[in-house]
This record gives sequence, structure tokens and C-alpha cells, in this order.
Amino acid sequence: MQDFVPTELIRYSKNFKNKTPLVRGVLFILKNTALCYDVAMNTSLQNKRHTLAHLLASAILELYPDTKITLGPPTDTGFYYDMETSQPITEKDLPKIEKRMKRILAGWNEVTSREVSFEEALDFFAGNPYKLELIHEIHQRGEVITLYTTGKFTDLCRGGHAENPAKEISGDTFKLNKVAGAYWRGDEKNKMLTRVYGLAFDTKEELQNYMEMLELAKERDHRKLGKELDLFTFSDLVGPGLPLFTPRGTLMRDLIVEKIQNIQKDFGYEKVTIPHLTRPDLYKTSGHYEKYGEDLFKVTGHGDAEFCIKPMNCPHHTQLFASQMRSYKDLPIRYMESTMVYRDEQAGEILGLSRVRSITQDDGHVFCRPDQVEQEIKNIISVIKQFYTSLDMLVEGKYWVSLSVRDSQTPDKYIGDVSVWDQAEKTLEKICQDENLNYKRVEGEAAFYGPKIDFQFKDALGREWQLGTAQLDFQMPSRFKLEYVDEDGTRKTPIMIHRAVAGSLERFMGVAIEHFGGHFPLWLSPDHVAILPVHEETHGEYAKTLHETLKKSGVRSVYMGADESLGKRIRISKTKKIPYILVVGDTEKETGILKLDGGDHRETYEFKTIQDIVDWFIRSASV
Amino acid sequence: MQDFVPTELIRYSKNFKNKTPLVRGVLFILKNTALCYDVAMNTSLQNKRHTLAHLLASAILELYPDTKITLGPPTDTGFYYDMETSQPITEKDLPKIEKRMKRILAGWNEVTSREVSFEEALDFFAGNPYKLELIHEIHQRGEVITLYTTGKFTDLCRGGHAENPAKEISGDTFKLNKVAGAYWRGDEKNKMLTRVYGLAFDTKEELQNYMEMLELAKERDHRKLGKELDLFTFSDLVGPGLPLFTPRGTLMRDLIVEKIQNIQKDFGYEKVTIPHLTRPDLYKTSGHYEKYGEDLFKVTGHGDAEFCIKPMNCPHHTQLFASQMRSYKDLPIRYMESTMVYRDEQAGEILGLSRVRSITQDDGHVFCRPDQVEQEIKNIISVIKQFYTSLDMLVEGKYWVSLSVRDSQTPDKYIGDVSVWDQAEKTLEKICQDENLNYKRVEGEAAFYGPKIDFQFKDALGREWQLGTAQLDFQMPSRFKLEYVDEDGTRKTPIMIHRAVAGSLERFMGVAIEHFGGHFPLWLSPDHVAILPVHEETHGEYAKTLHETLKKSGVRSVYMGADESLGKRIRISKTKKIPYILVVGDTEKETGILKLDGGDHRETYEFKTIQDIVDWFIRSASV
Repeated sequence: MQDFVPTELIRYSKNFKNKTPLVRGVLFILKNTALCYDVAMNTSLQNKRHTLAHLLASAILELYPDTKITLGPPTDTGFYYDMETSQPITEKDLPKIEKRMKRILAGWNEVTSREVSFEEALDFFAGNPYKLELIHEIHQRGEVITLYTTGKFTDLCRGGHAENPAKEISGDTFKLNKVAGAYWRGDEKNKMLTRVYGLAFDTKEELQNYMEMLELAKERDHRKLGKELDLFTFSDLVGPGLPLFTPRGTLMRDLIVEKIQNIQKDFGYEKVTIPHLTRPDLYKTSGHYEKYGEDLFKVTGHGDAEFCIKPMNCPHHTQLFASQMRSYKDLPIRYMESTMVYRDEQAGEILGLSRVRSITQDDGHVFCRPDQVEQEIKNIISVIKQFYTSLDMLVEGKYWVSLSVRDSQTPDKYIGDVSVWDQAEKTLEKICQDENLNYKRVEGEAAFYGPKIDFQFKDALGREWQLGTAQLDFQMPSRFKLEYVDEDGTRKTPIMIHRAVAGSLERFMGVAIEHFGGHFPLWLSPDHVAILPVHEETHGEYAKTLHETLKKSGVRSVYMGADESLGKRIRISKTKKIPYILVVGDTEKETGILKLDGGDHRETYEFKTIQDIVDWFIRSASV
Repeated sequence: MQDFVPTELIRYSKNFKNKTPLVRGVLFILKNTALCYDVAMNTSLQNKRHTLAHLLASAILELYPDTKITLGPPTDTGFYYDMETSQPITEKDLPKIEKRMKRILAGWNEVTSREVSFEEALDFFAGNPYKLELIHEIHQRGEVITLYTTGKFTDLCRGGHAENPAKEISGDTFKLNKVAGAYWRGDEKNKMLTRVYGLAFDTKEELQNYMEMLELAKERDHRKLGKELDLFTFSDLVGPGLPLFTPRGTLMRDLIVEKIQNIQKDFGYEKVTIPHLTRPDLYKTSGHYEKYGEDLFKVTGHGDAEFCIKPMNCPHHTQLFASQMRSYKDLPIRYMESTMVYRDEQAGEILGLSRVRSITQDDGHVFCRPDQVEQEIKNIISVIKQFYTSLDMLVEGKYWVSLSVRDSQTPDKYIGDVSVWDQAEKTLEKICQDENLNYKRVEGEAAFYGPKIDFQFKDALGREWQLGTAQLDFQMPSRFKLEYVDEDGTRKTPIMIHRAVAGSLERFMGVAIEHFGGHFPLWLSPDHVAILPVHEETHGEYAKTLHETLKKSGVRSVYMGADESLGKRIRISKTKKIPYILVVGDTEKETGILKLDGGDHRETYEFKTIQDIVDWFIRSASV
């Protein structure tokens, strides 16, 4: 049963088994948002999932005989089946369906297939317009029509199943988990069908782990936590993909930028400021207009003048470089700026902070001589390593570095001198070795303008994110005719390095919120400590003094007066993920001993004086 | 001769002398960019200037008889005359023309006028198409045509002259100063004429003072100094009105923002971050779309979605307020943000940093209860006063405060409850008195949404700038349905206060550069001190140690190694307006005594240790 596959994939996947591993790999890459074809990676598991889709359809047909079944593929975590049902199926019905699936499964000892004629097929699925549509299409393509049968259930299908489902699939390795609406063939002009989703893994443990991860991801969803922690908001009047950052969210943004600036302060980066608009001429010169013109936001005023909103900062930064005559002694010139760029993402692709239209880049550009490239890249790597170390994310096994180089088979795809490329790729690889980076050469992944290295980090939920990059650029400087006067008096073109540490602040914050589940490292946490007097009358004054002293020293202290019960205030502090709680009662007032209670997520400490707490926070939370 | 006056003004200014002072005042306000009708203020001086325009035309006709004279009005600093000349007139010719003017002036003992018929006038100016065009227009309006004659010169004119030019005008009170091109009647479709400008004042001293001021303004032009001090640049590819700030310019911007933040840190302002785009719905709700729709930059992507670029931040900030339920205890909520807004200024109006398309506002918005307005406004005034004190600009006689209130004659122009307005105006006036502000009530200058106070400062060149404002707004909160739950449980609409301290950072920097002529207060100066070793071999090492020590302590030190002669380096330091020079030679090395040389613009200080210098800088330059 591979009739679920989008048309282009059907065409390519004909005789899938006969394809070379490379072609199967390519097919694997052709992802559909709902499907992930890791068939080539784990055929056995995918076959089980495919079989479970049949099993789901079989159970539903038994329970709801009026149902018109349509398509049901495996996914990267299980399977689903789309159906037109005569009565609504909700999540409440899932246990019943699951139970029936298990009952049926016991009798599924083999899967058989047979080729049928066009007419036989039409006859078999008479009354199911969806299957008839598919049969007509297969017939028109001149392909063989096959039916697969297990137990009492037969489906239009191309195969790829467990050989003995009852034996191979254990009842505790799959679970139905969601019901959703889905348009027939994904087209909103078509009828809305019911899609039932299931999870399926090889073992019970894998299923349980995945379900726990799902639960965690739901709890940690940055959109949910972003609201609870009051970090950002969206407004219908402002529009989707355009987040507004509250004071606490803005503080986090500033802390990230400040952290990066502090780490790189000895490397000579200088802040610059550019406008968000430009004449299109800037991108016509850089080549972006031709390449990405359609994705640019176009701006018109009441005059004839046409502008674009910047989707990147590099072309503007070249103009700062070009504003003066530069000597070899002036180089490297290193610009940095945390500034918003705008990209016209499709409304359907927009998601929380992960995919936005207003993207704040922690952007940096270095203009340097060829002999300075190595040191500059090393500096950038040093900043990236220090930054992710401060987040405990630079951990063996939890990150790797991709070194993207040319595809040696297609030299024409790349611009710039071959010897410069050779040298640059060698330099980057040498740096990866010198720096003991866990790196992998990725052939053919270099940009057309130069090779690059990207840092890939795994988050707490096992997802991989590309964060932090250094890219060599041999093209833009010459397109903008950038020059410096070399030692011998000749004019030379500098090399440009694009670098980002956090990348987009929005995406980074989304990742960080979910990775830490809101329990940020102290330096990044919008709050440090909640001060809770047991009783306002007896402990309020002393507690306030503590709070004020901490605040004056830069500790992000929150005073929670005794309007509510102590228990309630402690619960609120925990919901708000305030790292430490300092309860001020009789003992604290009398002995002067202060306890920073770190709850379930952090250590608990005792201090003899308030100054000790201040010193500890300054040491532990310094940006 | 008032035929130069724009048509509507001609209509109103007929029988000018019979108008009431109010109407004359209104006429005065009807400024033309080239002209300033301070006739009502100083008729005698304007009459002299008008006469000098005739005198200029007379001299040119004697020297260049082929010239076709057109129009020549007085201006607020002198006069000009536009002419079609058969040979080019350049600034080299001005002394000759001026000499001839003085010779002619001696014989101008009276000015006579006579009414002439349409035909006589046409006959008199036959061959001069410009005058003929004017004559036809006057005739069509049914007005009387008058000719004014002095000596051998007769012009089409409505009068307003010195009675006895030879006696009233002294030869040393006027000066021709500029030649420029000007289209006939300012229309670029018409022929380009030659405009000769002159300066004229009542006394020789006033003329000299004004010429010195002009010279100073030229030297201090922020476009010239901005380039010399490497603060900002423009790029043809990016477009006019869109400045790019270099590292030094960005440093100045940051210092300004940091200064304001430090001053207001005890007043509870919190930084927020908003995107530059919004759906038009935001401005449809705020009312800006209807009022200023044409001046908004419209944005289109590849989808159907339409966006605007923000020309102000207040509507976005209301959405942050609206993101949560607010209690009376949460107020005031004070947002601040230094962010760029975009306005579609006409290409012809764009000038350096004074008039740009990308405007960085140091914007602030307070949402508060009515009983909190007074304290909030007082806080804002305190910040403005401290900020301009740090610039030595809050000096008696050099600033005043305009209190803009309703025009009591047109109550319909204003929205909001009359009693709220009364109370608000009273509160603002009381604050002005409490704060001992040199204030003036300006009736009818309130915005339709509320009264306001604006700080007006005189710069070193005597020009007045509106910098710093606090505006009450009774409208926007209700348009956006903003609410808080009051103590009694009812829902109330908060009052909004708009505040700016520096205003637009671009305009402020333009003013500051020209006011200080680049010799900024230490806290605002991109450099603090230049360290100059006399000889690199003998003093370089010691000088570098000094430089590094200063830099590490946050002093903005510049090391200028002995590649060039000491004299040349001192000259460069002065051109770059580096506040202090520290020359390191034998004496300094041996005695340890260090001299901070402040040159012509600052004191010179001697210090015994480098730590003393560090301490002094930290005290003197703290933001």
C-alpha cells in the first residue's frame, strides 16, 4: 500500500526496491510534512507501521461499516488513515478502536497480494469514490493494480508489510493518539476527511519513551511557556509572525546579545546601525534581487521611489566598509549588529517564535585579508563554543559541526578561484581539527559563494538545531567592488566572513524555552529569586530590605508580599519558574541565615549574610 | 513690489495695513520656504530689504543690459532677485555688482509710484516674458497695476520701500553672498533662472554677527562634521534619507540611549521590543490610517497580505498593554524602546540627519490612572531636565517650555471629556509652576487627543529646536479598548502619556553635532583621549601601557603611534576633535606626571598617577 504517496513521489518510487541506495536516499529526502520516508533506513519498522494503517482501517470498517476508507501511510512515528465517516469519530472512540485492532491482529498471520484488472478493481471498490479516483490514476499511468489482503481486510496497495503481523507486531508497541481533520489529498477545495493517527515503534519501551517525550514537548511548548512566563505576545491587529516582546522577553533578548558581546569583546567587533529599508539597487548589486526577488517585502510610499525591507544585513554592511578608503593595516574590520530582518514567510508556515516574519539576527561580518581568515574563524568558533558552554549545550554527543564544502563533480556551481576554494576548505578543515571539533565534511553543501561551518545542537527532546555559523564569502566583496590598499600599494578585494552565534533571536528563544522547559541558566533567567515573607507585619520590613539590597546589586529579585498564603505564593513562584525562593520568617530574621531554595530543578544553598547571597548571584549569573 | 507673493497671500495681503494685528499675525505665519514675512514685526527692515532687491536689479541691468529681471523679494535675512541673464553670473562677479549697487544707492533719494493701465504695463515691459506673465495675471484678477521708480530703475511692484534709500540704508549693512539656480516660479518644468542672494540688516554689527554665524554654521554643518568624525554615511545604493551609522556613530547613539535609561532607571520604565511591520488594521483602529494613510509606507509580499511599516510606536505598545488583564495595582505600566520608525519624506525635503526616512525614536509610553498623571509627568520632566543639564543646554534664557492647550473657541476640535481636559490642563500648568519652568501657554496648539508640554532649546547658533515632550492622550486607550480593573472592581480606561527625551536620535545628533561643533561633552564623545608617544622606541612601551590601562577602565583612549611627526599627530587629534591629548615623552616617563591637554576647547589638567586619570575620567564622563 503506497497509494498514499503524493503523485510525484509515486512516479519516482515505482519499483522502489530495485532502486539504488542513493535513489532510495533521495526519495527519503522528499519529505511530505506529514510523512517521513525513512523506509530506506528502517524498512522493517516502516512495514509494521504500514500494516498497522491497514489494521486501523480494518477495525474502523468493522465498527463503522459505512466508512469510506481513502489513504493511510506510515509516518516517522507511526501511521494514520484518512476516512469519510458517516458518524463523527472523536478521541473518546480511540480505546474502542484500538481494542478492536488488537483483536483483529491476533488473526493476521500473513499478508497476500494479487494483481487485478482495471475492471476488477473498479468493481471491488464500487461505492468508494476515493479509491475509484486512485484506481483511475494508476490505470492512466499504465501501472499494475495490486490488492493486498490480510484477514478479512483488502486494500488497494503496492505492498511493504510485515510478513506475519500477529507474530511481528506486539499489541503494546502501538497506540492511537489523535483525531484530526484533513482535506482529501491535502487540497482545501476537497472534502474534509477524518484522520486517525497512531504511534508505533519496535518495542514497548520505545513507544513509552516517545510518548513521554511528546508529553514533555507539550508541557514545554514555547508558545504555552512564553505566555505563562510573560515573554512575548501576538496581536491580531499587528498580524501573524510578528511577535511583540514584553519587558521580560526583551530582557532575555538583551541578555543573549550582551552575553555574546561580552564573550567577543576582545575580538574587536564594533556595533553598527543600519536602516531596515533600502533601494532595490542594493540587492540588484548583491545578486539577491535576482535570486530572491519574490521573497522580498516590497515597499511603496506616496512618491515613485521603490524600496525593499532588508531580509539580511550583509549588503548594507558592505556600504559601511565602502564609506572610507581602507588600508591593509585597518583590516580586519568587524561589524556586528542585532537587528530585525523581514522575510515574507507563508501564513501557513508561521509558528510561534520558530517561524516568524520579523527575525532578529545577531549578525556579524568580518572584512579581512586572506592571511587573517584562519584567526578570524578561530575567534568565531571560540565565541560559539563559549556561548553554548554557558548554556551547557556544548556537550560531547550532543553537538556536531558540519563542514560544508563543494561538490567536486560540479565545479561550475561555485564562483571564485579554485585555488582560493581549495585553500579555504583546507583551512576550515584544519581549524576543525585544531579545535577538536566533532566535525563531518558535507560534500556539495557549500554555498555558491564559499564554504562554511555550522554548529548542530541536540536539545533536551532529542531534536537537532542548527545554531551558530561561520561562512566564507568570496563573492559579495567583489560584487560591491570593496577594496583595500595592500602593503605593496595595490588594491585588493577583502574576504568577507558572515557569522552568527545565536542565529535568529526568535528561533533561539523558542529552542531555549523548550530545551530548558523555562528553567533557564541563571544568567538568562528573567528572574533570579522570589522573596517571600511569612507574615507581612512581622517579616515584611526585613524581607523588603533584603529585596532592595539584592535589586540594587543587580540581582533580579521579585518581592511577593503576604497578600496570599505562603503555600500559594510558593506555587506561583514555581509556575513562574523563578529559580530560587527565599522564605523570610522568624528563623531567618533571628539567625540571619538565609536559604536559597532551588526546588526540584536546582541545588539549595544557605548563606550567612545577604552580601554572601549577592556575591554568589554575581558569580553565578554574570552575563 | 509684492508681486512675488504666492497667489493666496496676495489675496489676503491686499490692504495689509488695514488688517487687524491678528490677521497680520496670521499672514506672518503663512511662510514660504524662501520668504519669511516678518513684515508685521519689522516693516522698516523689510522695506529696506525690498528696496535692496530693486537696487540689485538696477545694478545688474546696468552691468548686464541684456538681463531679463523677474521677481525679487525680501527674505528673513536679506533679499534676492531672480533673472534670466545672457551671460553666466558667478560669485566672482558679486563684488563688482555690490560696488555698482553702492554707487547707484547714493542717488536714490526717493521712491515714487504710479498706477498704469494694462496696455501701458505691457508696453513698458515688452520683451520680458516674465513680467508680461505677471502683468496678465494681475490684470485677470482685476487688480490695479503699479510701477515703482527709484533713480533710473522702474519695477512692477506693489510697494513697501524705504522712503529715502540713500539716507536710510548704509552701504555697510548689506552684502551679496550667494548665486544659485532657481526655476521660474519654483516649477522645475520652467526655465532655470539665476538667483543672486544678499544679506541685509539694520546695522553693520548685525550684518557681521550674522555672517560670523553663517561661517560657524558652515564649519559646523553636521553633514561635513559627520564625515570628518566618521559618525555616519549615506550610500546611493541604499538611498537618500537612510543613514548608516558607523561604529563611532553607533557608539554615540548608544551613549544617548544609555544616558536616558540611567537617568530614568528609578522611574520604572521597562524596555520592550516590537516589530517594524503591522497589518493596516492596527492603524485603522488607532485612527492613523484614515488621517495619515498616504504617508504610510505600504508593504507587499508575494502573498495577499498587506502590511505597513510603523511610522510611530504607540499603537504597537497598546497591544503589549492589552496582552494581559491589568489591575489598578499594576499601574503605571511604563514601556520604553529606542526603535526605528519610517516616514515617507519627500525626496526634496531630505537633509543629512535633520530630515530622514528612518527615524530612531527614544520612545516611551506610560499607561496610568488619572491620579498618577501628575507624578508621571513630573518624572518625565525630571528626566528631560537632567538630560539637557548633562548637555549644558538647560540654561536660563536658552530654553522655554510650551504648554499646548485647547482653543477655547473651538471645543469640537478635541475629543474626550471637557472636565478631564480642564483637569489635565490645570495639572500641566501646576506642574510647570511647581517645577519653575519658563513656560508659555499656547492656546489651540494641543493635539486633538490631549494637551502637552514641549521643551524648546536654543542652540549655539541661536536656532530653536523642539526637543523633549510629554503628551497626554485620552483617545488611543479607548480606541484600543484598553482596560484595567479598578479598586472597586469596575473596568476603567487608562490614560496614556507619550514621552520623548532626545526625540529622534538622528535629528538630535544633527543638532548636537552643530551645537557643540563636534566638541561633545565628555560622556557623549566617541573618543576621550589621544595618547601620543614622542618617540616610539623610547616612549612607545610606556605610552601603550597607559593606553591599555585607560581602555580597560572604560576610558575611550586612542593610541597614535609615532609613524608621523608629533606635530602632525596633534593636528590630526584636533581635526578629529579628540577632547584631550596626552603626550608621552621623557618628562612624563621620568616624573610620572601626566598632562591631559584640553587644547582650545577644554581645561588642561595634570595628574600624578594613571589611576588619578582613570578616576577623573570615570567621574567626568560617566553616562
